[in-house]
Amino acid sequence: FCLFRGLGDVYKRQDQFICHDFVGGLPTDVDQYEIAKFLDIPAVNIYMGLQDEMDGEFIAFCGDINRSLKQGNYLVTETTAQTTGWDSQWQFPPYPGQLRLAVYANIASGASLVSYWHWHSLHYGQETYWKGVLGHDLEPNRVYEEVTQIAHELKRLGPELVNLEKRNRVAILHSLDSFHGLSFMPFHREINYMTVLNQLYKTLYNLHVETDFVFPQSQNFSEYKLIIVPPLYVASDELLNRLAAYVKNGGHILMTFKSGFSNEHSTVRWSLAPGPLREAAGFYYQEFTNLKTPLCLRDDPYAVGAENKVSVWAEYLIPEKARSLAYYDHPVLGKYPAITMNNYGKGTLTYQGTILSDRLQEKIMLETLKMAGVPSADSELPGSVKVKHGILNSGRAVHCYFNFSSQPKEFIYPYQSGIDILSEKPVTKSLKISLPAWDLVLIKEK
Amino acid sequence: FCLFRGLGDVYKRQDQFICHDFVGGLPTDVDQYEIAKFLDIPAVNIYMGLQDEMDGEFIAFCGDINRSLKQGNYLVTETTAQTTGWDSQWQFPPYPGQLRLAVYANIASGASLVSYWHWHSLHYGQETYWKGVLGHDLEPNRVYEEVTQIAHELKRLGPELVNLEKRNRVAILHSLDSFHGLSFMPFHREINYMTVLNQLYKTLYNLHVETDFVFPQSQNFSEYKLIIVPPLYVASDELLNRLAAYVKNGGHILMTFKSGFSNEHSTVRWSLAPGPLREAAGFYYQEFTNLKTPLCLRDDPYAVGAENKVSVWAEYLIPEKARSLAYYDHPVLGKYPAITMNNYGKGTLTYQGTILSDRLQEKIMLETLKMAGVPSADSELPGSVKVKHGILNSGRAVHCYFNFSSQPKEFIYPYQSGIDILSEKPVTKSLKISLPAWDLVLIKEK
Amino acid sequence: FCLFRGLGDVYKRQDQFICHDFVGGLPTDVDQYEIAKFLDIPAVNIYMGLQDEMDGEFIAFCGDINRSLKQGNYLVTETTAQTTGWDSQWQFPPYPGQLRLAVYANIASGASLVSYWHWHSLHYGQETYWKGVLGHDLEPNRVYEEVTQIAHELKRLGPELVNLEKRNRVAILHSLDSFHGLSFMPFHREINYMTVLNQLYKTLYNLHVETDFVFPQSQNFSEYKLIIVPPLYVASDELLNRLAAYVKNGGHILMTFKSGFSNEHSTVRWSLAPGPLREAAGFYYQEFTNLKTPLCLRDDPYAVGAENKVSVWAEYLIPEKARSLAYYDHPVLGKYPAITMNNYGKGTLTYQGTILSDRLQEKIMLETLKMAGVPSADSELPGSVKVKHGILNSGRAVHCYFNFSSQPKEFIYPYQSGIDILSEKPVTKSLKISLPAWDLVLIKEK
Repeated sequence: FCLFRGLGDVYKRQDQFICHDFVGGLPTDVDQYEIAKFLDIPAVNIYMGLQDEMDGEFIAFCGDINRSLKQGNYLVTETTAQTTGWDSQWQFPPYPGQLRLAVYANIASGASLVSYWHWHSLHYGQETYWKGVLGHDLEPNRVYEEVTQIAHELKRLGPELVNLEKRNRVAILHSLDSFHGLSFMPFHREINYMTVLNQLYKTLYNLHVETDFVFPQSQNFSEYKLIIVPPLYVASDELLNRLAAYVKNGGHILMTFKSGFSNEHSTVRWSLAPGPLREAAGFYYQEFTNLKTPLCLRDDPYAVGAENKVSVWAEYLIPEKARSLAYYDHPVLGKYPAITMNNYGKGTLTYQGTILSDRLQEKIMLETLKMAGVPSADSELPGSVKVKHGILNSGRAVHCYFNFSSQPKEFIYPYQSGIDILSEKPVTKSLKISLPAWDLVLIKEK
Repeated sequence: FCLFRGLGDVYKRQDQFICHDFVGGLPTDVDQYEIAKFLDIPAVNIYMGLQDEMDGEFIAFCGDINRSLKQGNYLVTETTAQTTGWDSQWQFPPYPGQLRLAVYANIASGASLVSYWHWHSLHYGQETYWKGVLGHDLEPNRVYEEVTQIAHELKRLGPELVNLEKRNRVAILHSLDSFHGLSFMPFHREINYMTVLNQLYKTLYNLHVETDFVFPQSQNFSEYKLIIVPPLYVASDELLNRLAAYVKNGGHILMTFKSGFSNEHSTVRWSLAPGPLREAAGFYYQEFTNLKTPLCLRDDPYAVGAENKVSVWAEYLIPEKARSLAYYDHPVLGKYPAITMNNYGKGTLTYQGTILSDRLQEKIMLETLKMAGVPSADSELPGSVKVKHGILNSGRAVHCYFNFSSQPKEFIYPYQSGIDILSEKPVTKSLKISLPAWDLVLIKEK
Repeated sequence: FCLFRGLGDVYKRQDQFICHDFVGGLPTDVDQYEIAKFLDIPAVNIYMGLQDEMDGEFIAFCGDINRSLKQGNYLVTETTAQTTGWDSQWQFPPYPGQLRLAVYANIASGASLVSYWHWHSLHYGQETYWKGVLGHDLEPNRVYEEVTQIAHELKRLGPELVNLEKRNRVAILHSLDSFHGLSFMPFHREINYMTVLNQLYKTLYNLHVETDFVFPQSQNFSEYKLIIVPPLYVASDELLNRLAAYVKNGGHILMTFKSGFSNEHSTVRWSLAPGPLREAAGFYYQEFTNLKTPLCLRDDPYAVGAENKVSVWAEYLIPEKARSLAYYDHPVLGKYPAITMNNYGKGTLTYQGTILSDRLQEKIMLETLKMAGVPSADSELPGSVKVKHGILNSGRAVHCYFNFSSQPKEFIYPYQSGIDILSEKPVTKSLKISLPAWDLVLIKEK
């Protein structure tokens, strides 16, 4: 964990450094953004799903957050060697290839270090089953052999790959205060700020769109074509005005229900909701309801069949200038739109007054990405093949492809011709590439 | 809440009054009957189900209890304006018409006041989402407009409707001690004294039969044709003898299992069960069993098909003079009746030794109402149309019809010709009346 | 409960005795084996399932444990009269015949006493519904009449039946330390040491094989043809070496996963698993995994169809000399056997690296019983007819048959001709015997 800089100077010598860990994901009991101000480089422990559950999303999510904290690289100070757990209920040793896949996925997200917890397994105590590279028998084993291969590769390639630069065009606004405000006044037992944020992130991940995070304190909104706003329940007038100005100046926002409802003290505003966002959003509302059972959108406007479902919450939106994109199929709620889109200045603000099914969320996200002009060259990739882009130390672009599945996968490489960094063979634009199960390819443009 | 009269005189001036609340339903941690002795008029907060769940039952239930505490009118000191809840998980603003329907349903149960919690919604604190007539924006709104309509109507009609007199012929005996006795020695994890009482109440409500409550202290049993007895597990010899005398003198009782088992100290009687009730009930028993799975009644005697189910508890009743109405379909329990009926003096005592399905309970209730000679003019009403009868200040009978549904409903008015109080139009006997969704009609006889 | 012998001498006179109770089953918060050293005779309270749940297993299980503690007879100091429970949620009075069946089932397991809790039901307090032979009414009843019959029979037959001698050839090794070690480091939320032990016991019970228990301290392994070993997670080198020597000298072992993993201090061994058992088991392993969903064994080697399922845990066994009996049907785990069998010296060690379905466990148990040469004369009995064998005081063999079902059952008596002890009629070898529901027959050889 983190020590304040001053305190660190008391306990360590000038030639020593302090190693810390942001746990992974978005812990809600610390303010990572404020803490990061006192760190040279953020660091995180990433214990991701393995075996059939390895899909790379948690590695990407942890990386995107930690990279965004100080807009630079980060360290993975711990990750799984053999297995994890404070008992033996969660022992899932990686399939062959998965540890290697994880290391490169971390690097391609911007990690400048990956280290294992730990060298050998402990024989007693709480972490007996949080196994190391060596098992309890202290002999070479299957995992030790894979780690050996990774180490030899990185000895050769590390200097080229380290300190990768990322240039994403989409960001998610993370408001820790909104999480807490909605925890005090929850709108559902299971659905909350974090589940909505996670659904939005997963939608982007599944669409092969890399993302950054921004924070209420961030002054760099204008670097992004699209900002995604999970329920911004707690926000100052200043932040809401800054978001409105971002749209006015040509930015695009995809915003969810309850945004703008309370001020920075979690006190409900005494103006028509959504307060200072009213003009940018193009509607107001006075009422809202929980939904005991899911509703359909009238006439299935996104043609998603059984997935045409919204749930949990519905605001009685009354459009002023906004265009209604979809209505509830309900005798009383039917007069209010579920989703609106407003042209404001040079940008747009799309608003979701309810919880969307995953498939509906994907449809709305696709429309919004298109309006925002986010490039879509990766949209033809197979679902389990993920790509991460970056700029090498040398200034050359690199495109990293990962097969997160037990099946071999094929895809067409759509970027400039280049070189496969691992095999050192040339790769031409539009080449069909085959990736074995749990394998990867790193292509740098010429 | 309640302050004792003496204490009240210390804290208030002579021209002030104390306002209190019995919460609604049958709270089990206070003895409402004993407290009511110190009150001028009982008062209750009624937060009923709204939207698709509004069926009027909770309004009737709370009214029936509070009206019975002192055998007179009562106040509704709080009820829902927009929404309720100590967070935003339970926001269900009323459909158009539902607030108005609720006000007249309260009045027709004998309420002499209906007031809202509260004028405007709070901007912070525990009751932020317990919304008032005005929302957080403090502007006029949909609910404000409906409340305005109600207020104008009551300004005109209030003096005629207030202090309505009720004359019901069925009562439920509520024993708080039996609730507690069975809480210490429960017979099931989910089924208990209150669920049995509620099932009996709901059966009457669905059959369009209005009911009062009586209590162990009540001396007015003889005013009723039928007394319903939920499990009277804790009872003095005196109370049981009073019930037996009620039957002997021509009263009718529908009684459930475990009644008479323990004395007023919750100590099991050391005589053959059901103790002092043995002669009036016409049976005794020595054994009983829980039922892990429901049983059928042999040969489906009430022709209810899949609803031919009894469950949870079965007493091994051994009839002496009682007639067996139904037997368990079971190799060992099959020799014991599940339901008995005994003619005792001029009355009857019907006894249920087990938990009945809703449909079976309805059948037994119908038979018992018929034996007791309770009028059945309302039995032809559509399920969601409820009627409440009363005597106005003027001495004239009034019949109040409520449509608790989203569909328009029709019914034949079967009473003496009269006048529609709201429209002031005449209504003749046998007229077909149409009620829009969530609407009502109040008819006073000429 | 138990008082230490010295303390007992302080509180009692020489002519008094202390009565105690081991609760029933395998309580995990006391070390019965160590406590029993201070007892003259172990005693246990057996509150078994009744009505449709009476199958005799819990009576047998409690008897087998308590008889094994000091390798002799035991007392049943309490058992159900009418019903049990600290409230009225668990009232299940016995069907006619079930109390009598229970008494003889206890005696045939080696009980030298059966007494009831208690003479009459209490009228208040925690055990109001833990009913006695008499009910609350203190009058004769159905159960009183059955107990009267039992008492008259035992007055006649007791001297012949008491202190029955048992000679079983199969034993289960119970390691209380392994239960605790695996409770600190559980491998599953619901599956644990005791559920595995219970599955193994139930398998034997269903196969009509009587069993003893042995303990880590036991020095009599060689008396048994087969020892069943639930997960022996905590064990000293000495114990593991003693088990290996037992096999080498001709014994047979059926052993389950995690055995040998930790030493007697619950510290994981720093040698290749399963430590000192490696030579006798004929394999080693370095890795293991939890199973999120059940797997099949490849090619359904035991022909059990839908029951071809293993679950929860899988060790990556690497055979050295052991024969692989079955493999996982899985792309990565498929290279490791799920079950192995090793010939070691004159005996065999069969090892299960995973949790088997009940049907698979039965198949493996049958094969192991056959290898061990355990007699199978009882294998043709109907499922609900259980048999218990013993040696009477007179030195004559007795075979006790119990029908634990509501249906009459028939079977062929396969032993030497003898006499039906209750009816005193002769029984010839191969006679077809009919047992009414919940009835029994005791046959002593001539």
